[in-house]
Amino acid sequence: MKKGIRDYNIKIGSMAHGKRNSVSDVPGVTVGHTTLSDGDIQTGVTAVLPHQDNIFREKLIAASHVINGFGKTTGLVQIDELGTLESPILLTNTLSVGTVQSALVDYMLNDTPEIGRSTGTVNTVVGECNDMVLNDIRRESIQKEDVWNAIRTASADFEEGAVGAGRGMVCYSLKGGIGSSSRLIPLPHGTYTLGVLVLSNFGFISDLMINGRQFGMEIKDKIIPPEDTSDKGSIIIIAATDLPVSQLQLKRIIKRSAAGLSRTGSIIGNGSGDIVIGFSTASRIPHQKTQSPFDIPQIHDDEIDHAFRAAGEAVEEAVLNSLINSESVTGRNGVTKKSLKEFLNNNYKNNT
Amino acid sequence: MKKGIRDYNIKIGSMAHGKRNSVSDVPGVTVGHTTLSDGDIQTGVTAVLPHQDNIFREKLIAASHVINGFGKTTGLVQIDELGTLESPILLTNTLSVGTVQSALVDYMLNDTPEIGRSTGTVNTVVGECNDMVLNDIRRESIQKEDVWNAIRTASADFEEGAVGAGRGMVCYSLKGGIGSSSRLIPLPHGTYTLGVLVLSNFGFISDLMINGRQFGMEIKDKIIPPEDTSDKGSIIIIAATDLPVSQLQLKRIIKRSAAGLSRTGSIIGNGSGDIVIGFSTASRIPHQKTQSPFDIPQIHDDEIDHAFRAAGEAVEEAVLNSLINSESVTGRNGVTKKSLKEFLNNNYKNNT
Amino acid sequence: MKKGIRDYNIKIGSMAHGKRNSVSDVPGVTVGHTTLSDGDIQTGVTAVLPHQDNIFREKLIAASHVINGFGKTTGLVQIDELGTLESPILLTNTLSVGTVQSALVDYMLNDTPEIGRSTGTVNTVVGECNDMVLNDIRRESIQKEDVWNAIRTASADFEEGAVGAGRGMVCYSLKGGIGSSSRLIPLPHGTYTLGVLVLSNFGFISDLMINGRQFGMEIKDKIIPPEDTSDKGSIIIIAATDLPVSQLQLKRIIKRSAAGLSRTGSIIGNGSGDIVIGFSTASRIPHQKTQSPFDIPQIHDDEIDHAFRAAGEAVEEAVLNSLINSESVTGRNGVTKKSLKEFLNNNYKNNT
Amino acid sequence: MKKGIRDYNIKIGSMAHGKRNSVSDVPGVTVGHTTLSDGDIQTGVTAVLPHQDNIFREKLIAASHVINGFGKTTGLVQIDELGTLESPILLTNTLSVGTVQSALVDYMLNDTPEIGRSTGTVNTVVGECNDMVLNDIRRESIQKEDVWNAIRTASADFEEGAVGAGRGMVCYSLKGGIGSSSRLIPLPHGTYTLGVLVLSNFGFISDLMINGRQFGMEIKDKIIPPEDTSDKGSIIIIAATDLPVSQLQLKRIIKRSAAGLSRTGSIIGNGSGDIVIGFSTASRIPHQKTQSPFDIPQIHDDEIDHAFRAAGEAVEEAVLNSLINSESVTGRNGVTKKSLKEFLNNNYKNNT
Repeated sequence: MKKGIRDYNIKIGSMAHGKRNSVSDVPGVTVGHTTLSDGDIQTGVTAVLPHQDNIFREKLIAASHVINGFGKTTGLVQIDELGTLESPILLTNTLSVGTVQSALVDYMLNDTPEIGRSTGTVNTVVGECNDMVLNDIRRESIQKEDVWNAIRTASADFEEGAVGAGRGMVCYSLKGGIGSSSRLIPLPHGTYTLGVLVLSNFGFISDLMINGRQFGMEIKDKIIPPEDTSDKGSIIIIAATDLPVSQLQLKRIIKRSAAGLSRTGSIIGNGSGDIVIGFSTASRIPHQKTQSPFDIPQIHDDEIDHAFRAAGEAVEEAVLNSLINSESVTGRNGVTKKSLKEFLNNNYKNNT
Repeated sequence: MKKGIRDYNIKIGSMAHGKRNSVSDVPGVTVGHTTLSDGDIQTGVTAVLPHQDNIFREKLIAASHVINGFGKTTGLVQIDELGTLESPILLTNTLSVGTVQSALVDYMLNDTPEIGRSTGTVNTVVGECNDMVLNDIRRESIQKEDVWNAIRTASADFEEGAVGAGRGMVCYSLKGGIGSSSRLIPLPHGTYTLGVLVLSNFGFISDLMINGRQFGMEIKDKIIPPEDTSDKGSIIIIAATDLPVSQLQLKRIIKRSAAGLSRTGSIIGNGSGDIVIGFSTASRIPHQKTQSPFDIPQIHDDEIDHAFRAAGEAVEEAVLNSLINSESVTGRNGVTKKSLKEFLNNNYKNNT
Repeated sequence: MKKGIRDYNIKIGSMAHGKRNSVSDVPGVTVGHTTLSDGDIQTGVTAVLPHQDNIFREKLIAASHVINGFGKTTGLVQIDELGTLESPILLTNTLSVGTVQSALVDYMLNDTPEIGRSTGTVNTVVGECNDMVLNDIRRESIQKEDVWNAIRTASADFEEGAVGAGRGMVCYSLKGGIGSSSRLIPLPHGTYTLGVLVLSNFGFISDLMINGRQFGMEIKDKIIPPEDTSDKGSIIIIAATDLPVSQLQLKRIIKRSAAGLSRTGSIIGNGSGDIVIGFSTASRIPHQKTQSPFDIPQIHDDEIDHAFRAAGEAVEEAVLNSLINSESVTGRNGVTKKSLKEFLNNNYKNNT
Repeated sequence: MKKGIRDYNIKIGSMAHGKRNSVSDVPGVTVGHTTLSDGDIQTGVTAVLPHQDNIFREKLIAASHVINGFGKTTGLVQIDELGTLESPILLTNTLSVGTVQSALVDYMLNDTPEIGRSTGTVNTVVGECNDMVLNDIRRESIQKEDVWNAIRTASADFEEGAVGAGRGMVCYSLKGGIGSSSRLIPLPHGTYTLGVLVLSNFGFISDLMINGRQFGMEIKDKIIPPEDTSDKGSIIIIAATDLPVSQLQLKRIIKRSAAGLSRTGSIIGNGSGDIVIGFSTASRIPHQKTQSPFDIPQIHDDEIDHAFRAAGEAVEEAVLNSLINSESVTGRNGVTKKSLKEFLNNNYKNNT
């Protein structure tokens, strides 16, 4: 299994995780990265593919939830209206959203010749965080090829940490980035999976909590340079599940992401764009009306608490994984953000 | 100062609290209770008065936030539309909302002869939780006089715990009810107060966290009868502040209540009506158009993180106060819900 | 067929209506009234029963939409969260909402002994408009028995106009009240019905449009006393359908009510509580988890425009029916609001 | 004064318009276009500048309203969260949103060196409609220079019709595009202006209503090729005002756009992205915290109905102006969409 906070004897919550403890435990979900690392340029692109077929033609039930909307994510208006996802989800730095969206449109046009001809256009989803502390964001370094490469190389086995869109991100004054985790949801009719991937870029060291312990207060004097006094960060959370749910149920499930976030210490600052996008792979909604009406299976609400708990736990662990899986990075103006690994050792729990 | 979780050497967060560590630290805010306790009847009414003048004539900027909407609170539609509060906020059990609303209407009519004559009607706000575990809720025991009494006896000094609407509530499988806390917000232009009052009635013992420690897991085997397996609870959170804020800013502030709630262990269950109602006493909006336009002072968003943190901390502490200030109560069918006091001692912290 | 605006050769829109041209064209939907008419008391209660079984045990997919939230309707928080309806929908005057809700709770408790015992509580839905112009609303004349009577007498054949909750309502400075209309939705897989019932109580005579004609301007000088200068009105719209839809689709459909409303001339004034509640009878959601997952049939979005159009047309016609089916009423302080019938004759169209 | 539907003796509503009957009647607002017209390429860019200073440094109170969210507009998440606008608003075709956003980011970076250095990033707002009927949208013809040119050439006097982003748009099966209108709001404390600009691209000829008359039904047989049977259109509405309003008041005002839209015949189809963005120039919110708290003047809600009416009337007239000011255009595959001018003559009213 991949590395993660569990290697430090830190176990978040009470539910079991999937085989990879990753968003890709949900069958069909893959993730790819393009990482740019060269002096003042520390940035990248991450692509999440919800399934391996043409997602425009076979849409998924989807929902979004804005925890705090100081962010520039595209595509949410249509997700909220129609309750469906019809493109891969791309992540990048704030000022490259336009370029990434253009490249994603190109990808969709290439893959789906009927768009803009015999049918309408496509809703592309791009999330972002501001990596200006480590990356010279004003240079808009991302090129279209970087986007296509991230999509092309997507795999169920993917790296976490200071990679892809996470390359330049800073979280709790430490090196943040890409993290993932999953939870198994055992129900009488089958065992389902809920997996999350986060792009973490928020918070101050003094707020960091690890499984209830205010670890940030313990190490904050070792953080150099001292933390900023205003939160210009963000977090994008992608939640995937194979649980059969309605759009309304899915929206309720992903709202619980905020609980996991809070338990890592976040106060959900003003300047933070904290956004969750969720999808369920249990049903596919055909773009063309091949049949109508069709049946959407959904669980009874009496079972939904399991998914609520799974969402909270997986987000909490994914944020911690984004920290522990990130190496230290030196970027723009020689600023270095250190890895949590430098402060945590394998005996963390015994040292309490 | 009042009793609370701080008497057990448990200090939540980093900000200072107000003089009373209570919602009534916000000048003008008072709280009154009527408590019914007689065998199978364990219920009541709690009234929160936002200021001491006629609130219909001098409205306050207000906002609501639904964390989870499995609840029957009245009055939110108009608060969301107009951004103002024009009645006291009453709390009671779920099936008595109609009676309490009727009584509150009577109170407003009596106090404000122009309603329904020279001006329109009034939007009355009533929050509720389901106290059926300890209270025979089907009897609808609350009478109008109980409501008027709670309003009439409102005071800046008020009891917490198993009183008023909190009489029959159950929280984390322990005795829940009314709790309060406050935080001071020091800004260059003055020190402001944010206070919260909660009516707590949610969660299982195994989830209870006290300041990061999973205390519920430690004591869960001592809870008899064993906890229910489905969350039918709720929490109503009233947040008051004298900070000058716009309605939008206020809404963002009270959304941070969810962070405090999460840190006590809540997964925000399906069956829970978790609702926040906030108001600011900094401006009064006259019902009659005496002047237009008028000026609404508001802080710069760069200062709002202090209020976000205050909301999270005060809610976390208020929930714990609702537990520690509740005595054990035996109610319907002889069921007893124990006080947290029976499990916590003054040396809690040293025993960790 | 019932009387309505069609008797005046006025045909709204292009779609066919159902047999009754009424909300009760949706199989299972019935409506009952209790009307109080005695001098200064001109008010009442209207009950809409979504189906004829126990709706708490067999819930319907439901949605709400707030066009303008200057209103006091109860029950929307839970409808929005869970997407289900579990009680009849009651309508009354603004200050009687508490009493009506109490009576509706009693009705549900009586009908459903497990509420508050082996299961949780019930979400009761009560809509309202302010009838203070014709009714001495401060007297709170509605009694619980009036509510139970309205429920008990509900029928697929019911009166429209100045009856039930509509007794004291004023719309476009004319006598308003209860109106209904329906539209048939022919799809390849069957013909469905969408029906609406309105409680109309908004607008000034000068704004009234009938099928595009500014009829209000033509007759406004005949309205005595002259119209008020501020809109203290409201409209409650109940939309029922047997179309198989998801909660999200239903919400989108009922949002189109605003189009119909606008075409009668409404500017959706500040003081108006304009609220839509919709439900679909196509699926029943069991309260108890007898099976999970279960299938919810829903149409393909490519077919939804028919329902959008139906909603707009039915609301436009229902508002006009509420006017034309109301007799003139003299109420509080001897104020009279006249029926539209007094201004419209059977040759309306030819007179254009 | 500019040309418009008034030249045909068609007068929408009862309120007076501003000097230009245009969004630029709001002091400081300017509009610029870049139009691409070459065979299969019929598209463009339109820029709306809310004021003439650096809008990132001096933000405006802003709000958005999604009438129907089948659209790809960017920037709404942050507008909804913070209630402020900090960039010009750009309009273009759907698949060029990424390019236009990139170019707008470049413009902001160039104009505001502190972005991404001493302060955070910028929220750029780009609206779109799908012009694939007349334009080969898959070619993504818009270049960054086209965007900068539209911004650079913005003026209070600007063209309407088949120009800028409106070049390839189709509305009610006729040639749509850019339209504008304004209304004066006379209040005791001053006369204010509300102006709107629309990018119209929705609806079928059979639905077109002109001031209540179903003109579309009269001319629909003359439309060749026959209208499509599914609405793939959209409308973007920009509403500007100098009225002093809170963010909540502004949001309520722009919601009334839907009333104007409905009165031109729209049923607000499934496939339509109908989005409103509004701003008030009455206050400027400094990016830097130079002072806190500061005063935001706002009108009393008793005066807001005038603004509601203004929004409805201006939108209705702006849509009609977008039609009447558009010339006929022949585009992709030789398809021609005709101007409304070809069907309407100066004696329209007398011919009724």
